[in-house]
Amino acid sequence: MTNKFWLRCGLVVCGVLLAGAAQADFPTVPKETYEALKLDRSADPKQLYEALLKRYLDPAQGAGKGMYGQYWEPVSFSRYFDPNTFYKPPKSVKEIATREQCVKCHTDESPGWVAAWKRSTHANLDKIRKLTPKDDTYYKKAKLEDIETTLRSLGKLGKGEQLKEVGCIDCHYDINTKKKADHRQDIRLATADTCGTCHLQEFAERESERDTITWPKDQWPKGRPSHALDYRANVEVDVYAGMSQREIADGCTGCHVNQNKCDTCHARHDFSVAESRKSEVCAQCHSGADHNNWEAYSLSKHGLKYQRDKEKFNFNIQIKDAIAKGGQSAPTCQSCHLEYQGKITHNVVRKVRWANYPFVPGIRENISSDWADKRLDAWVKTCTQCHSETYARAWMEFMDKGTFSGLDKYDEAHDIVHKQFEAGLLTGQKTNRPAPPAPVKDGFEQFFQIYWSKGNNPAAIELRLFEMAEDHLVQLHVSLAHQYWGYTYTVGWAAMNRAYVEIQDEDTKLKEKLALQERVAKLEAHRTSSLFDFDSTDGKITLGSVGGGMLLTGTLALAGWSRRKKNNGK
Amino acid sequence: MTNKFWLRCGLVVCGVLLAGAAQADFPTVPKETYEALKLDRSADPKQLYEALLKRYLDPAQGAGKGMYGQYWEPVSFSRYFDPNTFYKPPKSVKEIATREQCVKCHTDESPGWVAAWKRSTHANLDKIRKLTPKDDTYYKKAKLEDIETTLRSLGKLGKGEQLKEVGCIDCHYDINTKKKADHRQDIRLATADTCGTCHLQEFAERESERDTITWPKDQWPKGRPSHALDYRANVEVDVYAGMSQREIADGCTGCHVNQNKCDTCHARHDFSVAESRKSEVCAQCHSGADHNNWEAYSLSKHGLKYQRDKEKFNFNIQIKDAIAKGGQSAPTCQSCHLEYQGKITHNVVRKVRWANYPFVPGIRENISSDWADKRLDAWVKTCTQCHSETYARAWMEFMDKGTFSGLDKYDEAHDIVHKQFEAGLLTGQKTNRPAPPAPVKDGFEQFFQIYWSKGNNPAAIELRLFEMAEDHLVQLHVSLAHQYWGYTYTVGWAAMNRAYVEIQDEDTKLKEKLALQERVAKLEAHRTSSLFDFDSTDGKITLGSVGGGMLLTGTLALAGWSRRKKNNGK
Amino acid sequence: MTNKFWLRCGLVVCGVLLAGAAQADFPTVPKETYEALKLDRSADPKQLYEALLKRYLDPAQGAGKGMYGQYWEPVSFSRYFDPNTFYKPPKSVKEIATREQCVKCHTDESPGWVAAWKRSTHANLDKIRKLTPKDDTYYKKAKLEDIETTLRSLGKLGKGEQLKEVGCIDCHYDINTKKKADHRQDIRLATADTCGTCHLQEFAERESERDTITWPKDQWPKGRPSHALDYRANVEVDVYAGMSQREIADGCTGCHVNQNKCDTCHARHDFSVAESRKSEVCAQCHSGADHNNWEAYSLSKHGLKYQRDKEKFNFNIQIKDAIAKGGQSAPTCQSCHLEYQGKITHNVVRKVRWANYPFVPGIRENISSDWADKRLDAWVKTCTQCHSETYARAWMEFMDKGTFSGLDKYDEAHDIVHKQFEAGLLTGQKTNRPAPPAPVKDGFEQFFQIYWSKGNNPAAIELRLFEMAEDHLVQLHVSLAHQYWGYTYTVGWAAMNRAYVEIQDEDTKLKEKLALQERVAKLEAHRTSSLFDFDSTDGKITLGSVGGGMLLTGTLALAGWSRRKKNNGK
Repeated sequence: MTNKFWLRCGLVVCGVLLAGAAQADFPTVPKETYEALKLDRSADPKQLYEALLKRYLDPAQGAGKGMYGQYWEPVSFSRYFDPNTFYKPPKSVKEIATREQCVKCHTDESPGWVAAWKRSTHANLDKIRKLTPKDDTYYKKAKLEDIETTLRSLGKLGKGEQLKEVGCIDCHYDINTKKKADHRQDIRLATADTCGTCHLQEFAERESERDTITWPKDQWPKGRPSHALDYRANVEVDVYAGMSQREIADGCTGCHVNQNKCDTCHARHDFSVAESRKSEVCAQCHSGADHNNWEAYSLSKHGLKYQRDKEKFNFNIQIKDAIAKGGQSAPTCQSCHLEYQGKITHNVVRKVRWANYPFVPGIRENISSDWADKRLDAWVKTCTQCHSETYARAWMEFMDKGTFSGLDKYDEAHDIVHKQFEAGLLTGQKTNRPAPPAPVKDGFEQFFQIYWSKGNNPAAIELRLFEMAEDHLVQLHVSLAHQYWGYTYTVGWAAMNRAYVEIQDEDTKLKEKLALQERVAKLEAHRTSSLFDFDSTDGKITLGSVGGGMLLTGTLALAGWSRRKKNNGK
Repeated sequence: MTNKFWLRCGLVVCGVLLAGAAQADFPTVPKETYEALKLDRSADPKQLYEALLKRYLDPAQGAGKGMYGQYWEPVSFSRYFDPNTFYKPPKSVKEIATREQCVKCHTDESPGWVAAWKRSTHANLDKIRKLTPKDDTYYKKAKLEDIETTLRSLGKLGKGEQLKEVGCIDCHYDINTKKKADHRQDIRLATADTCGTCHLQEFAERESERDTITWPKDQWPKGRPSHALDYRANVEVDVYAGMSQREIADGCTGCHVNQNKCDTCHARHDFSVAESRKSEVCAQCHSGADHNNWEAYSLSKHGLKYQRDKEKFNFNIQIKDAIAKGGQSAPTCQSCHLEYQGKITHNVVRKVRWANYPFVPGIRENISSDWADKRLDAWVKTCTQCHSETYARAWMEFMDKGTFSGLDKYDEAHDIVHKQFEAGLLTGQKTNRPAPPAPVKDGFEQFFQIYWSKGNNPAAIELRLFEMAEDHLVQLHVSLAHQYWGYTYTVGWAAMNRAYVEIQDEDTKLKEKLALQERVAKLEAHRTSSLFDFDSTDGKITLGSVGGGMLLTGTLALAGWSRRKKNNGK
Repeated sequence: MTNKFWLRCGLVVCGVLLAGAAQADFPTVPKETYEALKLDRSADPKQLYEALLKRYLDPAQGAGKGMYGQYWEPVSFSRYFDPNTFYKPPKSVKEIATREQCVKCHTDESPGWVAAWKRSTHANLDKIRKLTPKDDTYYKKAKLEDIETTLRSLGKLGKGEQLKEVGCIDCHYDINTKKKADHRQDIRLATADTCGTCHLQEFAERESERDTITWPKDQWPKGRPSHALDYRANVEVDVYAGMSQREIADGCTGCHVNQNKCDTCHARHDFSVAESRKSEVCAQCHSGADHNNWEAYSLSKHGLKYQRDKEKFNFNIQIKDAIAKGGQSAPTCQSCHLEYQGKITHNVVRKVRWANYPFVPGIRENISSDWADKRLDAWVKTCTQCHSETYARAWMEFMDKGTFSGLDKYDEAHDIVHKQFEAGLLTGQKTNRPAPPAPVKDGFEQFFQIYWSKGNNPAAIELRLFEMAEDHLVQLHVSLAHQYWGYTYTVGWAAMNRAYVEIQDEDTKLKEKLALQERVAKLEAHRTSSLFDFDSTDGKITLGSVGGGMLLTGTLALAGWSRRKKNNGK
């Protein structure tokens, strides 16, 4: 890892021309990031890039296999989840190709790549240069110039040289290279730092998530939850590392790759910004059992109006202008979540309050705090693009209180099951609860139990309780957050109510069973203490439940009583 | 409420000019409504509007908090659910603004409002006036003239005066006002009666749902289920009023607001009719656990062809012409459900037969009746726009019989659980069944149990049974109604089958448990009646299950038997 | 059936002109089909059509009610599921109409039909003839000529005669007829053989599914699973035939009609090829509990990019050119599943490996076989349109291994429940397990149990186990196959994990119950063997559990012991 870092920095240092005194003047990159990187805002692009890159590739700061790395082995597909750690150039492909040869050969080999690329801005930089102020994408002209400034600073572009195109070889070998690429040695996959070489502002913005999201009482680790550290968040889950079914564990990795790559949102190889502004981009990951953001949005008034009107939206326009100039009549995921204090950036977590998971310890209490109020105010500012402040505040209060109701309901159920656990009464708790695989430690109602199970670990009621929090409470909250009314009936509350009812039912049945077992035990105690005790299977008189030994074929003296009591013990 | 009514009527009466003898000539408003309002068809717009408004605002006829009003308090967001009851102008905004100032200031304050409005017909009335017969929306020209006639009748528009625009101030203060609006006093939200001032025909059509939907044996209250009384239907649910988690209760309110407002279907502030003709409008509410209309439609052939072809539909054309002239190759929700005998109106409930909930008492029997046959014939007429009559009737029969099968399955399960209830055998029924909050009354398998639960109220099996009817039977029926084939496997029948199996399983287990308890009781009875009885906990001889008292340290005479039997009682 | 075949062939034979020596030169029809039909590739269209038709209509080869036909009766809607078997012309319609009269009358009677048809290619054949090479649909010109060649071969079109149109009468009576159609005698619905009269290539392609899908160890019947025999696959399910709820059984038929008809994918009456190239076509059937293909695709990167970009796709272009020329930036269902070795055909099952159902016996083992490897290679070729071979192979391995993990988990659960079954311990297994309706045979964990249930057949745990395989394992596999990441958490694994946990929990509880029952039995055995035995209900001394008879009002001699032991038996 460290080697790789120096290799890349080395490439940079050896660049043909060293950049001038250009500043990396990116007002959208928050001060927290400059501070964390120990840079002034006057830093030049090269300084900013190198500082970001060093941190980005540092295993101590989240790169690579993570703190449980020794427990898990990659699968062959892992090279696509984390190319910096696992990808190796293909040994079976012998071609050493020029820029033009890449395109020519892959037109046959993988036509989809080339067709998409040919439509892309990457293949048509000159079109960008010819844009005029009346074009929707005129803003891209300045962006291209900024990118060229960055590349000059990095020594990747000569003074006065213009970038001709961004082709296969630029991302998969080296930007603006004049050399040939040897498949067996040179081919790399484009990771976030690759994209960041040109798109430094965006790279810095997304990396800033590490710096801006900090929690008053460490409810979450620093910099999380965020896209910038989502791979770390994945591989440092103990059960991820511990479970033997690697392809199941990697189901989570499928989404937790934004730390490593940009192509979740910017699908290759057209990399259309217009496309990445559509809500369906976010749906790829923000959907499902414990992050039903897409389901909630897409059935809300917001999402359904988006569906009805989107064909008339002008997605070429920058998000900040979409409402006023782009005909955007309903919010996209992006227009609310990428916005912070009126600016659109790649830091998506600046307004986070609940962080999707209301049950995380300390989150609930934190909602009434200055920390949270500041973020609430930022949300209200977002909403007032289309709503009154009164409306926005009334809704935020509604959402919070609805979530509190869910938490209370969960607490009631938790109390019941936890008492069973403390009394050792969960099904099989004392007889059939295998330990989870290392590095996972067993415990009551743990995350690992939705991934891994064996014997009676977890108990059914325990898993139900966990899902009540992880799935149903989350769905209640997320649906409220997106004003999807299904939270009472369809998801969320109805499911929590059902879980509570079933948990209560099981608890009452358990108590009845225990009562019955006690009655039987009492009867057994009585039996063992009664005068004569016969085994029914062979008609012989035995010594009750005391072992199976001592056969008595005759009579038994009353004197035997006290001794048998002791043996019976219990 | 009453005050508000007179205030509004007062405004009307004081209008600058009284209307001439214009008739409110709305053939799409059913006779039932004229009868209910005690009006002739020769009534002028003012008479019609005032009669509608009086009823609309009358608490005795469904306005406001409802018959359980004393049990529940509004939340701050309630002002948006029922503005007529809860909305107060914002005290913190001091501006007193002209028509133009509203727009100017809100261009900055809430740009989404203004941008949408500027695209709307409301902001471009002159464009309507210039339409020619070859324009798709030419019909709007006549509609605008009708609206102006109405406004003249109401004294809101001078003779010969044209409506210039419908801006912020017209809906949020008073239509066509020349005055300034004082935010702290004058601002109102637009409720259905506000929209109805201009859109009188549509207001009358939607209010007619109160009159046309009547049930032969009062299976539902008069005028319900309908959009016209959907708020009443919500707040007069006992558990809505009784539960303490107000934001959860209001999850239902989120949709049950069409009585109060028009903007569920006509989203503010573009109020595009074309948009409101798209199926995704209905999905906002008609989706979810117990009204899966959207899910069924959108995975049916109808809904999926809509998805494939809709970009070619001309939504500017009136629904009645959509198939023949608008390229509409698949039904929208609106084109089937707003149609009745060839006409499209805002009364959506005229063909109702099953009313979504087959388990409602009396609904099943009613399907074979003249009442239902008349509606079936109306449905067949709808279907023959694109199907043969034979096809339509075969399908209706198929749908009905499939629903009957579901009802039968439900009845079997009901019988099992109900017997348990009658025998007092539901889990915790005699030991841990707290009463629901007032005004809710406890009972077997009640609606409140999917909202509220405590202790063993409801029992798990009881809730499962209820959901079998409320969710799964409904999903079976609704899927059949929309020809979504998933009703056998994915939703509906499969879920009912599963519920039946689990209920049967629980029942058998319960019987086994009872049998075992009886055997233990018999043993206990035997023990108490046996010669010697020892307590196993301390090795001392006790008097069995008779209290814990009477310790016997020595022998016990046979003479003791009969007395102990009596004590044991049971 | 046989009669019908000869009738049709008869019509062909009597055609006005016999065709020349035209070959049915269809390279996309696989050799397996020519072999099965005992034809050379030099066969003319007439020979090919007649051979296909004969097989198509042959009950022994899958036409009609199937091998359980005597058990089930059709419903009135069955005529639309299987017109060749059940449709009769409408007796109530007396019109005898010309080609033009059909259109004229139905413009009023069923306007949707006519409006759609008027947009269709069928109504605009001359437009096809005027296409030039620069038109997207130019390929249709040659296709029309092929169709005319076929019709001439069949004697349906005169030498040099051009087909003027394909109107109502052509499909619903006879192609290119000059006669009038009598509704009461002549009207037919268009089945696949009707469409195949003109679209012979496509008919042959789809019928070829019968021939290409064969299984090394008969894991599935020959030619299945496929569209070509999907109706047979439906009606030859024993529980389909046996269950009394016909409309529920026919929920499956709703999709299993592709054997009989083409209009699932080619919706009537516009029959737009462009439309049928959209993924939403497949969603009609390939969605839901045990074939969640649509759900998986539509939330995958593939499906969501399709949603974002599809408005820019040129669906008029043939699928084979869609990526390179049609701007198709994301796969449709069709572009991957209709492709085989670079060609697009109506045989959709040539790359089948898992066949959707990993739990089918022998499927798992078969994945490592030459048979499967050949198909895997074909898949890899498909993927390399847009991915590297390394990527494709890594993913296929990932998918297979993930599915294996699911199978292992299922096996663990199966073992638990199967042991209960073998021991006769399923709930009610010995006391309340009614036999399923004929022709269904009872057994452990059977398919019929998700359709039909009665008493404790199936047991809850047994149904849960079955659904673990039929629904959750399938969802795991299908989600993996479509790279939908929800397979770990949202569907698939999480649900399997939950099922396993609940099954384990039930099993432990069962063992505890059995242990308690045994303890009680021991106590009872003890009681019956104890000196004195009193019945607690009336205070009289009885002979324990031995019958209810023998009242003992006095003392009982020790001599009685041995006899009672024998009576007690057990």
